[in-house]
Amino acid sequence: MPKNELTQMLYGGDYNPEQWPEESWDDDLKIFKNTQINSITINVFSWSLLQPCEEKYDFSKLDKIINKFSNAGFKIVLATATAAMPAWMFKKYPDVARVDYQGRRHVFGQRHNFCPSSPNYQRLAKQLVTQLTKRYADNEQITVWHINNEYGGYCYCNLCQQEFRKWLKNKYHSVNELNRAWNLNFWGHTIYHWDEIVVPNELGDAFGPENSDTAVSGLSIDYRRFQSDSLLKLFQMEKEIIEFHNDKVLVTTNFHGTPNPDLDYFKWAKFQDIIAYDSYPTYDTPAYQTAFLYDLMRGIGNGRPFMLMESTPSQVNWQNYSPLKRPGQLQAQELQAVAHGANTVQFFQLKQSVGAQEKFHGAVIAHSGKQNTRVINEVKQLGKTLQHVGPQLLQTTTQNKVAIIFDWSNLWAVNYAAGITKDLDYLASVLDYYRALYEMNIPVDIIGVDSDFSHYKLIIAPMLYMVKENLGSKITNFVENGGKFITSYFSGLVDETDNIYLGGYPGPLKKVTGLWVEETDAILPESVIKIKFNDGLSADGTLLSDLIHLERASALAYYDSEFYQGTPAITKNIFGKGESYYLGSKLDNKSLKHLFKTICQDQNDSLSITNYQYSSLELCKRVTAKTEYIFILNLSNQAEKIPTSIDLNKYETLLNTDKNSSNSIKAWNVMILKRNRLISD
Amino acid sequence: MPKNELTQMLYGGDYNPEQWPEESWDDDLKIFKNTQINSITINVFSWSLLQPCEEKYDFSKLDKIINKFSNAGFKIVLATATAAMPAWMFKKYPDVARVDYQGRRHVFGQRHNFCPSSPNYQRLAKQLVTQLTKRYADNEQITVWHINNEYGGYCYCNLCQQEFRKWLKNKYHSVNELNRAWNLNFWGHTIYHWDEIVVPNELGDAFGPENSDTAVSGLSIDYRRFQSDSLLKLFQMEKEIIEFHNDKVLVTTNFHGTPNPDLDYFKWAKFQDIIAYDSYPTYDTPAYQTAFLYDLMRGIGNGRPFMLMESTPSQVNWQNYSPLKRPGQLQAQELQAVAHGANTVQFFQLKQSVGAQEKFHGAVIAHSGKQNTRVINEVKQLGKTLQHVGPQLLQTTTQNKVAIIFDWSNLWAVNYAAGITKDLDYLASVLDYYRALYEMNIPVDIIGVDSDFSHYKLIIAPMLYMVKENLGSKITNFVENGGKFITSYFSGLVDETDNIYLGGYPGPLKKVTGLWVEETDAILPESVIKIKFNDGLSADGTLLSDLIHLERASALAYYDSEFYQGTPAITKNIFGKGESYYLGSKLDNKSLKHLFKTICQDQNDSLSITNYQYSSLELCKRVTAKTEYIFILNLSNQAEKIPTSIDLNKYETLLNTDKNSSNSIKAWNVMILKRNRLISD
Amino acid sequence: MPKNELTQMLYGGDYNPEQWPEESWDDDLKIFKNTQINSITINVFSWSLLQPCEEKYDFSKLDKIINKFSNAGFKIVLATATAAMPAWMFKKYPDVARVDYQGRRHVFGQRHNFCPSSPNYQRLAKQLVTQLTKRYADNEQITVWHINNEYGGYCYCNLCQQEFRKWLKNKYHSVNELNRAWNLNFWGHTIYHWDEIVVPNELGDAFGPENSDTAVSGLSIDYRRFQSDSLLKLFQMEKEIIEFHNDKVLVTTNFHGTPNPDLDYFKWAKFQDIIAYDSYPTYDTPAYQTAFLYDLMRGIGNGRPFMLMESTPSQVNWQNYSPLKRPGQLQAQELQAVAHGANTVQFFQLKQSVGAQEKFHGAVIAHSGKQNTRVINEVKQLGKTLQHVGPQLLQTTTQNKVAIIFDWSNLWAVNYAAGITKDLDYLASVLDYYRALYEMNIPVDIIGVDSDFSHYKLIIAPMLYMVKENLGSKITNFVENGGKFITSYFSGLVDETDNIYLGGYPGPLKKVTGLWVEETDAILPESVIKIKFNDGLSADGTLLSDLIHLERASALAYYDSEFYQGTPAITKNIFGKGESYYLGSKLDNKSLKHLFKTICQDQNDSLSITNYQYSSLELCKRVTAKTEYIFILNLSNQAEKIPTSIDLNKYETLLNTDKNSSNSIKAWNVMILKRNRLISD
Repeated sequence: MPKNELTQMLYGGDYNPEQWPEESWDDDLKIFKNTQINSITINVFSWSLLQPCEEKYDFSKLDKIINKFSNAGFKIVLATATAAMPAWMFKKYPDVARVDYQGRRHVFGQRHNFCPSSPNYQRLAKQLVTQLTKRYADNEQITVWHINNEYGGYCYCNLCQQEFRKWLKNKYHSVNELNRAWNLNFWGHTIYHWDEIVVPNELGDAFGPENSDTAVSGLSIDYRRFQSDSLLKLFQMEKEIIEFHNDKVLVTTNFHGTPNPDLDYFKWAKFQDIIAYDSYPTYDTPAYQTAFLYDLMRGIGNGRPFMLMESTPSQVNWQNYSPLKRPGQLQAQELQAVAHGANTVQFFQLKQSVGAQEKFHGAVIAHSGKQNTRVINEVKQLGKTLQHVGPQLLQTTTQNKVAIIFDWSNLWAVNYAAGITKDLDYLASVLDYYRALYEMNIPVDIIGVDSDFSHYKLIIAPMLYMVKENLGSKITNFVENGGKFITSYFSGLVDETDNIYLGGYPGPLKKVTGLWVEETDAILPESVIKIKFNDGLSADGTLLSDLIHLERASALAYYDSEFYQGTPAITKNIFGKGESYYLGSKLDNKSLKHLFKTICQDQNDSLSITNYQYSSLELCKRVTAKTEYIFILNLSNQAEKIPTSIDLNKYETLLNTDKNSSNSIKAWNVMILKRNRLISD
Repeated sequence: MPKNELTQMLYGGDYNPEQWPEESWDDDLKIFKNTQINSITINVFSWSLLQPCEEKYDFSKLDKIINKFSNAGFKIVLATATAAMPAWMFKKYPDVARVDYQGRRHVFGQRHNFCPSSPNYQRLAKQLVTQLTKRYADNEQITVWHINNEYGGYCYCNLCQQEFRKWLKNKYHSVNELNRAWNLNFWGHTIYHWDEIVVPNELGDAFGPENSDTAVSGLSIDYRRFQSDSLLKLFQMEKEIIEFHNDKVLVTTNFHGTPNPDLDYFKWAKFQDIIAYDSYPTYDTPAYQTAFLYDLMRGIGNGRPFMLMESTPSQVNWQNYSPLKRPGQLQAQELQAVAHGANTVQFFQLKQSVGAQEKFHGAVIAHSGKQNTRVINEVKQLGKTLQHVGPQLLQTTTQNKVAIIFDWSNLWAVNYAAGITKDLDYLASVLDYYRALYEMNIPVDIIGVDSDFSHYKLIIAPMLYMVKENLGSKITNFVENGGKFITSYFSGLVDETDNIYLGGYPGPLKKVTGLWVEETDAILPESVIKIKFNDGLSADGTLLSDLIHLERASALAYYDSEFYQGTPAITKNIFGKGESYYLGSKLDNKSLKHLFKTICQDQNDSLSITNYQYSSLELCKRVTAKTEYIFILNLSNQAEKIPTSIDLNKYETLLNTDKNSSNSIKAWNVMILKRNRLISD
Repeated sequence: MPKNELTQMLYGGDYNPEQWPEESWDDDLKIFKNTQINSITINVFSWSLLQPCEEKYDFSKLDKIINKFSNAGFKIVLATATAAMPAWMFKKYPDVARVDYQGRRHVFGQRHNFCPSSPNYQRLAKQLVTQLTKRYADNEQITVWHINNEYGGYCYCNLCQQEFRKWLKNKYHSVNELNRAWNLNFWGHTIYHWDEIVVPNELGDAFGPENSDTAVSGLSIDYRRFQSDSLLKLFQMEKEIIEFHNDKVLVTTNFHGTPNPDLDYFKWAKFQDIIAYDSYPTYDTPAYQTAFLYDLMRGIGNGRPFMLMESTPSQVNWQNYSPLKRPGQLQAQELQAVAHGANTVQFFQLKQSVGAQEKFHGAVIAHSGKQNTRVINEVKQLGKTLQHVGPQLLQTTTQNKVAIIFDWSNLWAVNYAAGITKDLDYLASVLDYYRALYEMNIPVDIIGVDSDFSHYKLIIAPMLYMVKENLGSKITNFVENGGKFITSYFSGLVDETDNIYLGGYPGPLKKVTGLWVEETDAILPESVIKIKFNDGLSADGTLLSDLIHLERASALAYYDSEFYQGTPAITKNIFGKGESYYLGSKLDNKSLKHLFKTICQDQNDSLSITNYQYSSLELCKRVTAKTEYIFILNLSNQAEKIPTSIDLNKYETLLNTDKNSSNSIKAWNVMILKRNRLISD
């Protein structure tokens, strides 16, 4: 039986009335109404108020809040409040706190610091959520249950150690298999009993900053999987309680980070009724990186619209520098999320707190309490826009033909790879490719290794170092059946426990790429390896360069310096009905776009919204079966030209944006265009 | 009954004869006499020698030292030796050692590392000081008792945790009040019992390097107050013992740092019979920063002369680079302290140690033991100078009309403020203003928030982020009664537990400044915000820029770039008989001096010694009722011109300095001028 | 009864067949044979396989390995496998793990982390080695026993603390003597009982990163001596067991680092039958630094040939950047070791591991398993070269006339010296001098303070800060008897427990240098002190500059800037039949070579292979009584000219290198020349 769906775009965000006098609530409510805010997220950090001691709950204030805002017609996102444990709990049950990477048990403080293996934490969280759901399950204004908050971080305590051993036993069955999987004979790490396994923190096999280095990569990668799974079990525990009382309401937790490296969000996403994301670009985050994160959030949810659950209406207190948003910037940045598939626009926060850590984080209602502020006026403007376009967009989806693979296990494995250059960076490599496509206005899905490949024309897997079982043949089949596939240096090297595929790189991708790599040179920082394309283009390679032996592939470009000058640098392999491409070095942005254009242009239909006309604007598409919406976003502080390949006359303009004579769009302005879909789409 | 006062300028410093054979003492004494040294500071780190085990004291060597040097007429500064605990004490009573910010109990080692809450430390220190005072209280050569040494650093042990809870209970009376004061509902930190409070180290609410970041600023700020108070209680405990045996002798401890951020020196100063300061500028410390610290030491002592208790006769071993002092540099730098109010010139140290940590710290008697060294000759020269000018200067004071506010609670609060720029730096902001005045030769007092404002014409409070109860109205009254007041961005934001004053910044300073601030932009490093004065001057703002709404104030300058171009940047508010000024951004040095000149010039009398003629020399004034002494210090390695506005013919020259035809003063030379005071002073 | 000697140059390296299926061993063996590899190093990290639990040993697989490769004629370097403890050992005996500098007991993980004072570790290691030697002592293919692996690192546990107290008692006999030796009265550290001494980690007297800073240098230096000795005792324990079963076989352990600062290798070398070294220059290590390390390894072994026990045939996984070796680079770099005295060429490793920490470390057999790789071809080429030249070189030695002193106690002492510049760096200072000689083609021995000085014409002791008892008179005698001696700033300051020699620097070197130093200026980074030689050369001094008083010495150069302009900077003292030189500042490389040329040229015979003609090539000499071999190594990526002073016609050319018309040698090429020795050599 399917769950409810959002019936309107939520516009609102985090609100903590329990931190304010009750007398002030009506004033707040009036401002919310006045700015088109229709939703509040509450109860995120209220555990200590709801449960003053183990024996006692007190929901009186929460009742009042929920009643007031339900009655006023607000959609409520109700948090379960398990993210910050009360002081008394640390005192009474010290095991609820984590042991850190340095081996130290923590005490009361901070937040998001519960040990996932602590039976006391589990029991007390369970009881709280049970109380909450029993009490509020039937309130129909509660649209989404928000479990915990921004899960992340790891624990290294004895309880986790015990649970880890069980997790391993369940996965590997025998210590011999574990010894093989982690190659434990290396450095004499062979074990004979499960209880010889210790957690990989600074006292054991790990070293360097947390999650940076390890003597046993198999161990450390599995520990990250285990911790991700352990936190996920907590989420599932809470979710089951909620669903026991209400099996229709949406349940989620909020993802975060750029992205958060701690949790395998593809795995977590399976358990979310709707993906929710907290988005905090800094003043100097390039727009394409934010776009990537939104595409990732849509991607982990299999293309479903997601919630923009947190974003700032003004400044962020914890970033190094947080200049004010320029006029229009708020709307443009929030609509960027919508353009990529967000169906909510939610702020952290609605009211600026009076004290403690985040008091300088911007909010709709600032410390001044005044109603006619610049920020409130911008929020109100955006509210009107959403009221106008929201209902049309709510049922739209995206249908892209190009995908980039992103994989958390690979992120972890590359991270631990003690390779021949310290500059390996999986995310940066993926972003290189994403950026080139973004600048070519080619809309992209970010998919996982377990995603369905069948509806893509082109799949790109940069630095796909770890290729788990069956993934090689899945890719091979994709190409055989007509897909195009691009991969790069440092791909196809290891299996899922980080053991090398012997017999030549790129292991299970050798067949589909039609080549093997004998050696890989490390390119020094500030240096380049020259590359020459067959069509004459000169390019720069950096980071690494593979010394490639062609088997069935042919070369598109050759190295043009160093002792391996004249050997293949970029190759193409026609395989079955498809093609696969291999990049032996990290290409400069311009040459990468040149290569993509070559690869993409011989598609029957254009993959790019602008037919490969570059632009400083961001272009996005959301569609229904019959209609398409084009977002043109100026995410810069100056006017930018609209690509001539977009014929504005063919569209209806939804947002009241000036189309001036020079056909440019002002700083931080947004156009939303609409037309019937063409048959060829 | 008033205490004794210094009857002569002490010239001498730290001396550790107990580390040397007794046979060598006479040679040392001869060198001291020969260089005009008249005082020794002894017994600073002798606890382990004085008390070989808990049951036994041995004062035999100290007796000999005190006898020899008393008999030879030396003034003695006698330390109580409680700063470095003997090894046996750590072994017998592990709780005397501190638990550090990382949560670890330390063992024997280092110094200055006693837990302030340890009953064992307290008892043993008390007993030692009792023994010492009983024995030496009547020695009239002991001019100053020097308690402990350079107090500082914090402890995070369970005993401190218990004492902290008592301290809080005493301050806040109820947990509800504490919850409110620290805004503990934020992140669900609400507590219900005093024993739920834990110390804010890395295992609890603090993070980052020690004293840098915290989730609960109210907690962390109060913990610093508590630790400062706890160490102060130790000081008071020792002082009471001394005064019980001799209520006339001066008692003090030596302050240090630039300044030491750990202790609220304004609070500590109240308990010092005379302020003592250890001064260690590095080779690249600008002279104005050293001047600021001397003015601060005079300021915390309410204008009284202070002791320059430590300074180096040569090099400093622990600084990154310590070039030799150039010829004349020693005298010039020591007289800088005198010019700002020092009545002693004391060195660390008189004799260079043979081994361990500080053996490369310079001394009067070097490792060579030779008597005709460059350093000894410079020391002798300074000794003669002091013999000449000391008696005249001993009773002089300073009488300045301009003050800058400096406040330790504000230092702590700004430090923890997680704001919209990471570049907030309270001390640097204060120094910006100090430097401008220094370069304009305007003598300044550094005062605290509790100081008497009434005898100043101009008070400056840069970045006065924390405005505790009543301070707003104290400032308002000061202006109302005719004072001029200058404040800046990031002022008036929070109360003394770091909760925001709601209703618009700058909170309690809104009335006197006649404006409110809606938002504050973060200016990126390497960027500036353009500012245009009404009189045409173009200036650069950095760090932050406030978006100001004028209420009663008028604008002196406007922003001249960004979307808030044309809005007020610097304002003036005529209020009562006075004026207050607000700077919305951090002004460049040149423009700040321009502004100061504008503000100061319409005083009836000039505040600047040179009538605002700039100079690379440092100018200071010490006065008696009838006489004034002008110090002209060349603190650079090249000759500098004397400002023409100083008519040397009107002064008697005390120091035998060449006045050459070009009226310049040689590198590292000093002039001291004297004349009768004018009636207008 | 002398031990066996190497009867052939070993060519091979680390090999871990136990990590691979037995079926693969024959393929490996075939590749080894094919590349002239004649030796394997095995069993380095096999403890956990050999001993699955305390009660059980299993040598079945090791038997097979040793049998197979013995039978195939391979020389075996057999490791004792005590470097990596099995997991069960940590579990059963937690005390086998070290306590770290932060005070934390470690758990199972990593390697090289046994506590040297743990009775459990000692007992279990002893038992393992006893089993191994009983079993394999008679195998004649086992040419070298390789004890443990790359000893290093320190422990700070209670057991070490107890042993340290015993070690101190044995050295100092009384606490009074210890108090004097460490100058413990400073900062009141005086102790009265041995058990008041605590280990110098971060909880006690040390601070900063490990081994960087300490309050009590005597303590910290002695702790390093103690830890070095403690690990050496473990080595000796194993060695005695081996020798009990076979008193002919060579026994060693492998030294490492640049060099490893943890162990006093001069002391350790006395117990090695042959010195073994693991050499890992990075891509940007200047060739002279690698040469220095080889000379050091020859030097600690009193001039005996050494084993190049580890080096990479390709890339290194743990360095920041590890580009591929260019064609010829492998042979050139391995022969550099041979040129400096290596009698083995051994790789880490023969076969690339499939998983864990070092899987990207290059190997002879790569992951591809292919036999016709670029690396294997280069290895084969080198194998042939060694087969050709090895037998001739095996009995050669070096006979140099110039030596540089290097001393671990001095390294430690300078490291802890809290001086007037933070840039003190003993190794860098030694390398300054080494580099100048290297560029002048003057072959150098690196000797210790206890080495025999008598067969050198020139001994250089840069920054010889610590001059232990009798060393001063040893140097004085050397000069008196006709030697030349060069020393520098920051020499002769302290005795072996880091107490200053009073009476003027350079203490015990005052007499031989004929001067004393009153003060030392710190030269700021980016600054220089100008120096002018008597012969007109202008030079730059950096780091420090001593203010020198000549007593019997005369000046060769004077300072030419600052207030001490015109005072001596570089001096010469004719003393007895010899001469000694003192450099008051750190000379630039060009001027240092100028000075060396001046000092060396008046030798009767030339010390330089090229008679002081500089060259970018590296030149080395190995000799027998009648024959000399000149190595000309081009260790760069471009062709370089052969110095004209080498008349190639007078030599036989051993390596088949092109002598082209321009008399240059190609990138990464090597010539080995041979001729009869001249009588004058």
